[in-house]
Amino acid sequence: MTHADAIFSDRISDVPRSFIREILKTTVRPEVISFAGGLPNRDLFPVAEIEEATLHVLRNNLKDSLQYSTSEGYLPLREYIAARYQKRHGLAVHPDEILITNGSQQGLDLLGKILLNEGDHVILEKPSYLGAIQALSLYQPRFETVPLLASGADIAALAEILQRSSPKLFYSVPNFQNPSGISYDDTTRRAVADILRAHRTFFIEDDPYGELRFRGKDQPSFRHYIPEQTILLGSFSKIVVPSFRLGWIVAPAKIMERLVVAKQAADLHTNFFCQKIIHRYLTTNDVDVHIATIRAAYGRQCDAMLQAMRKYFPPGVSFTEPEGGMFIWATLPEGQVALQLFDKAIQNNVAFVPGNPFYVTPGEYRTMRLNFSCVDPGTINAGIQRLGAII
Amino acid sequence: MTHADAIFSDRISDVPRSFIREILKTTVRPEVISFAGGLPNRDLFPVAEIEEATLHVLRNNLKDSLQYSTSEGYLPLREYIAARYQKRHGLAVHPDEILITNGSQQGLDLLGKILLNEGDHVILEKPSYLGAIQALSLYQPRFETVPLLASGADIAALAEILQRSSPKLFYSVPNFQNPSGISYDDTTRRAVADILRAHRTFFIEDDPYGELRFRGKDQPSFRHYIPEQTILLGSFSKIVVPSFRLGWIVAPAKIMERLVVAKQAADLHTNFFCQKIIHRYLTTNDVDVHIATIRAAYGRQCDAMLQAMRKYFPPGVSFTEPEGGMFIWATLPEGQVALQLFDKAIQNNVAFVPGNPFYVTPGEYRTMRLNFSCVDPGTINAGIQRLGAII
Repeated sequence: MTHADAIFSDRISDVPRSFIREILKTTVRPEVISFAGGLPNRDLFPVAEIEEATLHVLRNNLKDSLQYSTSEGYLPLREYIAARYQKRHGLAVHPDEILITNGSQQGLDLLGKILLNEGDHVILEKPSYLGAIQALSLYQPRFETVPLLASGADIAALAEILQRSSPKLFYSVPNFQNPSGISYDDTTRRAVADILRAHRTFFIEDDPYGELRFRGKDQPSFRHYIPEQTILLGSFSKIVVPSFRLGWIVAPAKIMERLVVAKQAADLHTNFFCQKIIHRYLTTNDVDVHIATIRAAYGRQCDAMLQAMRKYFPPGVSFTEPEGGMFIWATLPEGQVALQLFDKAIQNNVAFVPGNPFYVTPGEYRTMRLNFSCVDPGTINAGIQRLGAII
Repeated sequence: MTHADAIFSDRISDVPRSFIREILKTTVRPEVISFAGGLPNRDLFPVAEIEEATLHVLRNNLKDSLQYSTSEGYLPLREYIAARYQKRHGLAVHPDEILITNGSQQGLDLLGKILLNEGDHVILEKPSYLGAIQALSLYQPRFETVPLLASGADIAALAEILQRSSPKLFYSVPNFQNPSGISYDDTTRRAVADILRAHRTFFIEDDPYGELRFRGKDQPSFRHYIPEQTILLGSFSKIVVPSFRLGWIVAPAKIMERLVVAKQAADLHTNFFCQKIIHRYLTTNDVDVHIATIRAAYGRQCDAMLQAMRKYFPPGVSFTEPEGGMFIWATLPEGQVALQLFDKAIQNNVAFVPGNPFYVTPGEYRTMRLNFSCVDPGTINAGIQRLGAII
């Protein structure tokens, strides 16, 4: 082994490169209609309200907001988050069970750090969120995958995994998953919770999209069913703004104690100035009204995409019908390969993300992720028509 | 092993708890004169200028500043940092060699992540910065320590370490170190660089205080001597404001490539809104004038402390005479224990940090860190008098 190879840790070699980053580079030409992104719609950012909140922080004891702060995060913000869990979900969460993080992405890194030894088994959904695959890969676990059905995780497959190995945790996005758009129904939630309870496996409930439901009714958090084993990840990126990098972890006290140590070692604390701005924003605006606007827009765009898919896609293509979130997941007819279709699509000025990066094993996948949050209904129709023509 | 013990990773058990956090809790009584902190002086924050810069960002295409951004960081900010290296140090740094991080603390976490396997040897100074001990401990290296002399690392000890093991990196704060206040002279820099060059060991040059020199002249960065092996960490926390959590890493391209992967997995990117604010601040103000104000104030406070120590401490106490930064390091007479003195000091309403957390091995240390950045000269004199009386 040469010196150049020997300088890096084994763990960094295990991290998949962001294929999506590469893909996005090919989609920046203005003539491309892109369903490849994963961004919230910037036209729905509460710009004036953020400006007002920022002015308030600027004009009230600014020095305090510029100094170092606590690793746990701004207490009034943690109190707000706790109160919102009570109000929205009837969940009793103590502010001391909440740690403010740099988006929920950092929550994944910190959880991997404090929980995983090399070779520990971790269950992922198949497909799974790429950011979680990347963050957890760094701690060199052994991934097991449980297929997603329309109702959520495949219970029989999950039971089988837990019978033959002892996974430390199950990472899941039970509401409007990225990339599939699939949500767990309550029956599936209860069944998953029962299995995990018996095996004392942690459930990481990553919920960046939970508030973006445009159809159906909210489902209970796993914290209702297995409170001591549930670790919740939340984020303001999809409901307020992403650039502040503000998210949080909710975890039982004994886990939280270690998370705070890891957070302190990672970066001392999250940007305090923006914690104060978002707290001001949240406490002086009707956030529910704002979120309703996002939900309505994404719902219209999702419907436009589903309608266009029914019209322009050949019958052999199946796709999910999300009740919220930002993504639809389509499966091409047997024999087609999504990566090959991607090349053709780009030539025809339409883009999506082939399913490959959402699996932990390489393969010739025929799945694709389509994002509808940033494209208006007319453009969605035109783009899906182009895509249908080449499938 | 019970389930409760088995849930955590081995690495998190290796991280020392922040003893300083505990200490600071005992020093919040208003009657305590505290030299225990490590904060920049909030009265020197450029409050009006930060307000102006924030208003500019609010009023110019705010939507852009609220959206997700790139993992590498805001390009104009990286260009500014690169230009400042050229101007201040005559160092040619390409913006692509710079990654924006959440303070330089995150730089340590990312470097540990991409470079260290369990059991890899890492050289630290003795004493060393606690935050580095914590961040690097998570990657389970074997620490070797090289004593600090008044001129910097003990060259003979360093040579001996490198002869018997092959450390991957040497972590150092060569300017006004935290906790010791010691700086490397140029002879020591060249000698250290020569040894490291021969062994191809990386040098992490953590430089949060380099701009805060109030005596003597600037010393060259190790990047002048071993550019391919030097990784620089920088921070705006001590020269602008800390709450934004903005720092950076400068590393050769092959290292940078992996750092960006690790950064993306850690939290996607650093707060973009505040990157834009600080860029506006830096490009519309004379930062050197601002830094000169901080330097002058810290210099006065350091002098007041040194003068008081000469007056009130018994002759058996030795201490460093820093040329910059925020800390003085004192060594008690043979037989005294800093931790015991700390208890007595608190009873007498004066506080410092006993040396213990700055060593990787436990022991009965007789060293102590004294911070002068946040206390005015009169109060410094009174506090040192109290402390002298009980030594």
